[in-house]
Amino acid sequence: FTGSAGAAIVLKSKAAAFTDGRYLQQIAAQVDPSVFRIVSTVETSLEAWLETNLRKKARLGVDPWLHTEDQLKRLRTAAEKVGATLAMVEGNPLDASWPDRPALPDAPVVIHPEALAGVGAPAKIEALQNAIRTAGASHAVVFAPEAIAWLLNIRGGDLPHVPVTLSWMIVPVSGRPLLFIDKRKLSADAAKAVALVCDIKPYEALSESLAGIAATGARVLIDPATAPAALGMIVKTAGGEVIGAADPTLLLKARKSPAELSGARAAHQRDGAAMVRFLAWFDAHAAQPGLTEIDVARRLEQFRQETNTLKDLSFPSISGSGPNGAIIHYRVTHATNRALDQNSLFLIDSGGQYADGTTDITRTLAMGQPTAQMKKRFTLVLEGMIAISRARFPKGTTGGNIDVLARRALWEAGLDFDHGTGHGVGAYLSVHEGPQRIAKVSSVPLEPGMILSNEPGYYEPGRYGIRIENLVVVTEPVVPRGGRRAMMGFETLTLAPIDRRLIIKRLLSPPARVWLDSYHRRVLEEIGPLVDGETSKWLAAACAPL
Amino acid sequence: FTGSAGAAIVLKSKAAAFTDGRYLQQIAAQVDPSVFRIVSTVETSLEAWLETNLRKKARLGVDPWLHTEDQLKRLRTAAEKVGATLAMVEGNPLDASWPDRPALPDAPVVIHPEALAGVGAPAKIEALQNAIRTAGASHAVVFAPEAIAWLLNIRGGDLPHVPVTLSWMIVPVSGRPLLFIDKRKLSADAAKAVALVCDIKPYEALSESLAGIAATGARVLIDPATAPAALGMIVKTAGGEVIGAADPTLLLKARKSPAELSGARAAHQRDGAAMVRFLAWFDAHAAQPGLTEIDVARRLEQFRQETNTLKDLSFPSISGSGPNGAIIHYRVTHATNRALDQNSLFLIDSGGQYADGTTDITRTLAMGQPTAQMKKRFTLVLEGMIAISRARFPKGTTGGNIDVLARRALWEAGLDFDHGTGHGVGAYLSVHEGPQRIAKVSSVPLEPGMILSNEPGYYEPGRYGIRIENLVVVTEPVVPRGGRRAMMGFETLTLAPIDRRLIIKRLLSPPARVWLDSYHRRVLEEIGPLVDGETSKWLAAACAPL
Repeated sequence: FTGSAGAAIVLKSKAAAFTDGRYLQQIAAQVDPSVFRIVSTVETSLEAWLETNLRKKARLGVDPWLHTEDQLKRLRTAAEKVGATLAMVEGNPLDASWPDRPALPDAPVVIHPEALAGVGAPAKIEALQNAIRTAGASHAVVFAPEAIAWLLNIRGGDLPHVPVTLSWMIVPVSGRPLLFIDKRKLSADAAKAVALVCDIKPYEALSESLAGIAATGARVLIDPATAPAALGMIVKTAGGEVIGAADPTLLLKARKSPAELSGARAAHQRDGAAMVRFLAWFDAHAAQPGLTEIDVARRLEQFRQETNTLKDLSFPSISGSGPNGAIIHYRVTHATNRALDQNSLFLIDSGGQYADGTTDITRTLAMGQPTAQMKKRFTLVLEGMIAISRARFPKGTTGGNIDVLARRALWEAGLDFDHGTGHGVGAYLSVHEGPQRIAKVSSVPLEPGMILSNEPGYYEPGRYGIRIENLVVVTEPVVPRGGRRAMMGFETLTLAPIDRRLIIKRLLSPPARVWLDSYHRRVLEEIGPLVDGETSKWLAAACAPL
Repeated sequence: FTGSAGAAIVLKSKAAAFTDGRYLQQIAAQVDPSVFRIVSTVETSLEAWLETNLRKKARLGVDPWLHTEDQLKRLRTAAEKVGATLAMVEGNPLDASWPDRPALPDAPVVIHPEALAGVGAPAKIEALQNAIRTAGASHAVVFAPEAIAWLLNIRGGDLPHVPVTLSWMIVPVSGRPLLFIDKRKLSADAAKAVALVCDIKPYEALSESLAGIAATGARVLIDPATAPAALGMIVKTAGGEVIGAADPTLLLKARKSPAELSGARAAHQRDGAAMVRFLAWFDAHAAQPGLTEIDVARRLEQFRQETNTLKDLSFPSISGSGPNGAIIHYRVTHATNRALDQNSLFLIDSGGQYADGTTDITRTLAMGQPTAQMKKRFTLVLEGMIAISRARFPKGTTGGNIDVLARRALWEAGLDFDHGTGHGVGAYLSVHEGPQRIAKVSSVPLEPGMILSNEPGYYEPGRYGIRIENLVVVTEPVVPRGGRRAMMGFETLTLAPIDRRLIIKRLLSPPARVWLDSYHRRVLEEIGPLVDGETSKWLAAACAPL
């Protein structure tokens, strides 16, 4: 199973594979249903499944390096309810049957210029140390590679699509942090830059160092929601205290610096020009017989390559024609590759990694003459996407508070989509980052400088999918004219037209129409000068007022 | 201080009085600022204040009968952060300086007819026992008098406006519950009815009984968010285990039975007729010199009395002219009583307790010629109130998810209101009940049969207040025509016109206009036949399409 979220539970006589709404169709195709029962976590949590299937006195083995403290707590409670227990395994039994497991990657670390980051590593470390102090801790374990990349202004190449380097850090409330990393990944220059702000230790030395620090009575901040539970076990075993709190680095990283925001705007202009060239090409070629989803994704990647600044795609492009568009996180393969349908919808969700920013955009495009139902539902999705784009909200408002704006028009029509409305996005880092989200369950307040996606959708299984996605950044609070209270809002970063042929104008609310015309005017002004004459003509037509 | 929410902290050399946005103006008028610093809990929590003001090694006395476990936890964490500790007091020191404290009330208990409740006490107790079993507990302490009234189908008269009887219950997972109550409050008939389903003990016997049960190793469910922390301390001291979980009675009570919903509709028709007679009277008399807020509130109470079914007001009426309308939970007194202003707004928030239902309605009324600003803001508040009324939403949606619908129009104009959008409402019980709410922070899913208020507002300090409130009930999920998913929604219970003179029609969205005209048509149809000819004529004009 190649989806990005899943779990498996293997009991003596039965097994289950779990994933969420995004991947239900995919997991059913990839996992053998004669071995694993497929379970939707939207319907049945791991815990609920355990309560029904785990026997009394059973001992359920768990690898604490693969689960967070929060996850273990929920599993433990479920097991205890039926009179079973959790047993921590030392050495994951799966590893024993995985002899050809590849070695850890060792791509070189590169320095991320301070001109792009906007803030130097020493100032970032100081901000983190202040947060560690406020939490009443003496140390923090920073385990997320994105957090370390941000903190030290470094980038790596250990993972596809996410420019990070596998490593760990222990940051004391004062003094020099420890970085645990494979030293072969550090060039002389990189080692010198990193050594200015922290001491370098071997990647494998983490457990021992952490135990040594804990043995001095340290109070170690460990994020129970994201860090492996094994870390807390090491601290406690060695006599230290665990302070369970969100990794403060994540929130610091989420609020982009002015330099990062300028970079994001520049990256989105270049990416927008590549998208516009692609959209014009798609219009001209969509009816061409034999053109496939893979052809389309490759052509788009090529347009991004031609910016001469593309470092990587920010994730494998989702390029779905007709029914494949309804698979929420569809990843086209040679086995599923489909020639473009006619009189249906094409969904393309893609993004680029640039040194100055990370992009993520989805457009749903008409192929031939889509049906009235497709247009109606596209218009409802667009209404929600624009409602988020136009939202104003005071300090303290969470993503869980505003998520409904993206869904209201769909709900009124008895429709919905089974994914969050938006995820946080990094600055030349992961295209998915926390803690900010726009989702029913998010209780994190939105703050100025946070970048998020805004991507409502609608999926008609076996027929078509609709998603419209722009990236937005939370703006500074200002008091609207005639108002009394300061309100934040969203600045839209993504610049590419939305397919006007799919909009039923009379179904779109008047304020949404005003927003869309103004957005298209802006796209034409900012992207028009960046594309050639032919494409510019296409763009002017695509950006005409409704 | 007579507000319904507040706290005080008294240190050796300083003291502070806390309340929320609703009561800030009121507390400043009622509490001596030379003794107590007034603190808004919206700005500074009790814990934040303690962290700044409590000295190292201080011992902060707390009465565990007046604080919940959750509150104690927060206070303890704050105290420990500055190196201070909490000390539980035995016997509240305030009581020592309160020699003339009145005795506990002893109003008689009355049986609430099963025809109105819809469900008998045995079935309710069984449902509670199932929930106790699911929570893995052996017993539950039910401490909320409203919960006990609901569970046993009894009502009382110990408190103004809330028909409950002070009592406690211990409910075992199987077998007969214990009711702790002053037996003098039970007539022979009431005692007989209650004894059918539970054993009766003296009110004072709770602590001893609870300790006795805990000593047998009981696992006692106690709500850490609502029950006094003292209960858990008793259980633990006696060797029992505390299961911290929400009192399941509250959720069971919140989902009204079909009989309770029929009762609510009938009560709202009678109450609506009284409101309409009042509104017609107000229109005819608002310009009469010397008419005061108290006169208006009395006249409204009289109209409710004339239904011949009023048991009590559901809370002291809020009757605020001009600037007094801006005091969110204003309670008119002879000291603050104000003659009606001209060319301003009058805010009246009131409700009645009837055997078949509890009402709560707010209307904001024009006096003379209100300003354009008043009308504009009234229209924004109305837009939000209608957005909630019209909302459709799937299973699992919380009050925190939809709260924004009530605020969006205000936020867009840089305005807001400092209270929740809606509270739960009981069935001939408290006009404020949980766990359901419409508020930013609420994570309780809305379920069919829950009654809530829908009451956005806007308050211009020193000038005027606006609030528009209807009660609504969550409807069963149904799939809208042409849709795919079942959606719940709200049925409006409250029936009284909304002042059309305050609406700027072109500012109201088209769907909101449709809703308002249809609501007014319904008010005219249902209430018209219940009022006399003159009032009916007035009502027809008040309910004319926009």
